[in-house]
Amino acid sequence: MDKLNEVTNYLKENGIDAAFITTPDNVFYLSGFMSDPHERLLAVAVFKDAEPFIIAPKMEVPDVKAAGWTGGVIGHEDTDDAWEIVANAVKERDVHPASIAVEKVHMNVERFERLSTLYPEASFTGLDDKLNAMRNIKGEDELEKLRKAAELADYAVEVGCREIAEGKTELEILMAIEFEMKKKGVSHMSFDTMVLSGPKTASPHGNPGTRKIQKGDFVLFDLGVVWEGYCSDITRTVSFGEPTDKQREIYETVRRAEQAAVDAVKPGIRAMDLDKTARDVITEAGYGQYFTHRLGHGLGISVHEFPSIHGANEIELQEGMVFTIEPGIYHPDVTGVRIEDDVVVTADGVEVLTKFPKELQIIG
Amino acid sequence: MDKLNEVTNYLKENGIDAAFITTPDNVFYLSGFMSDPHERLLAVAVFKDAEPFIIAPKMEVPDVKAAGWTGGVIGHEDTDDAWEIVANAVKERDVHPASIAVEKVHMNVERFERLSTLYPEASFTGLDDKLNAMRNIKGEDELEKLRKAAELADYAVEVGCREIAEGKTELEILMAIEFEMKKKGVSHMSFDTMVLSGPKTASPHGNPGTRKIQKGDFVLFDLGVVWEGYCSDITRTVSFGEPTDKQREIYETVRRAEQAAVDAVKPGIRAMDLDKTARDVITEAGYGQYFTHRLGHGLGISVHEFPSIHGANEIELQEGMVFTIEPGIYHPDVTGVRIEDDVVVTADGVEVLTKFPKELQIIG
Repeated sequence: MDKLNEVTNYLKENGIDAAFITTPDNVFYLSGFMSDPHERLLAVAVFKDAEPFIIAPKMEVPDVKAAGWTGGVIGHEDTDDAWEIVANAVKERDVHPASIAVEKVHMNVERFERLSTLYPEASFTGLDDKLNAMRNIKGEDELEKLRKAAELADYAVEVGCREIAEGKTELEILMAIEFEMKKKGVSHMSFDTMVLSGPKTASPHGNPGTRKIQKGDFVLFDLGVVWEGYCSDITRTVSFGEPTDKQREIYETVRRAEQAAVDAVKPGIRAMDLDKTARDVITEAGYGQYFTHRLGHGLGISVHEFPSIHGANEIELQEGMVFTIEPGIYHPDVTGVRIEDDVVVTADGVEVLTKFPKELQIIG
Repeated sequence: MDKLNEVTNYLKENGIDAAFITTPDNVFYLSGFMSDPHERLLAVAVFKDAEPFIIAPKMEVPDVKAAGWTGGVIGHEDTDDAWEIVANAVKERDVHPASIAVEKVHMNVERFERLSTLYPEASFTGLDDKLNAMRNIKGEDELEKLRKAAELADYAVEVGCREIAEGKTELEILMAIEFEMKKKGVSHMSFDTMVLSGPKTASPHGNPGTRKIQKGDFVLFDLGVVWEGYCSDITRTVSFGEPTDKQREIYETVRRAEQAAVDAVKPGIRAMDLDKTARDVITEAGYGQYFTHRLGHGLGISVHEFPSIHGANEIELQEGMVFTIEPGIYHPDVTGVRIEDDVVVTADGVEVLTKFPKELQIIG
């Protein structure tokens, strides 16, 4: 409950009486309980001077307790007015909030108006920055899970490479990967697994399909797993058969760009400079126009979280931040290549979580 | 663009100058373009007296056009201030909105505050009820897609039944189903496919795992596919080997409850009465305490949408509404059984979209 205490202390320091936290990822971060309640109310209620509680759909109450939450849990049914139940529980704690913190990036306007009606005299502040700042810096317990998630992602790419064969479809390879992951106890991938081949690699957001793999194709894997609530995200591009000189040149350019950025990671460097480090390599090689997205994104409970590694983000990296580095070149006439690692900022440099080789793998 | 015109007319009738629609499902409903932009801005801007436009992440602009959207499309990059771009585009159209409609159930407080800062004089109203009312009643074009999605779900259950064998794991069966769906061109399931066996059927929200199926198990499939943007959602429970009398009794109780509700569907009946129709059958059989959730939920672009079919919802069913009917009994000592159909309210009754047999299937 260290994280919960940190929120409580934040409320005390800032004279905020109550916080209602409703983002599923933040609920998990604070309570260990992960659930997507859809339109139903799931919230952690934290107070300056009273015991916290969770309100959850009634059928999930046992799961909240099983997740290790030792505070109060209140269930609500579809036929209940869930916010009314919250207001009663707050009153029972003898709390009469004059200032309330919510996640302004998650709480919708309807709920906000409802809360404003329940507490018409209260002022409202955002809790987003505080929670993001907490989540931005991973503790050792979180890094352990991220390492394991990355290790499984490495293995998933290995499985994918093993599955590549003339005439096999992208989807067949994808299913083989996911099945192997499920056997390893992975219940969810971080996002839709991507296996793209040949010309389809040239789209940064392609859809795997029934295209049959053939000699001369590059095959791109972009995938990750969720392990105990934490995500990995790896991309590797491999060659099925001998690559052409042009394919190899593009590959090596991306590889140099990626490595340059990885090598530059350390506390104090700005996100924008890291983006520039990789982008410069690609631009100097003449492919700048084909690198059409940011360098990377934060990684943790969410597969896209802070910090964002893009050319206008002045944030300085700090020890404990975790993010992806994933430059790419998407050349419509040759091939697409993307290489992506998950990295941790350490006291004096970088720890790379994903370890699948980055030398061009030639298969078959 | 009929749907877009309906929104425009709604703005005219209500004297609202502009609407910004940001829910991905509603963006798809109005534009044909489906995307999850994560934290990035994706919005359809509709005006009382000016041409609509879409603002989207720059790399998705070609996809917006490919989806058939013929209005303006504005791209933004991660380094841009997307709302500033919106404000400029609005100004270029010579629109100076004094009243603005947003989806209060989707728009977050931060965006709302940003919009309020951009238009400090404007009043804000909710567009949720209008969009929900539109989406609540499916047109023939939508029903066609829902029929196809249901047909594929029927086939998925058929595949699942074929795969059942002594010693096979839930996950093996699940992967076989999803692989077959992908071969049929299904890029996404509506939600995480559920294959549960034996005692695991007694949890309404269980996780498929490596449990090996054995004779005497009930096996529960709960799954659906997305077809051209529309979802299906079917549940069937089958018996691997001869069921016990108790298993059969529970199955037949659920089946009677489900059929009673299906037979009661027609315009004018209230959602709560439909819930009661099924619940009464289960309660009278002595299993009321084991039916722990609502009867069903609306179905369309979202797998959970309006109308909600629960015991406190007084809404009267209308022709064109589509929802699930899915009573269940979750008996911890015997078995869980759920049977779920997707139904359409017709002019004089009901069309059942899911057609997999409901007589207890005995396999092996």
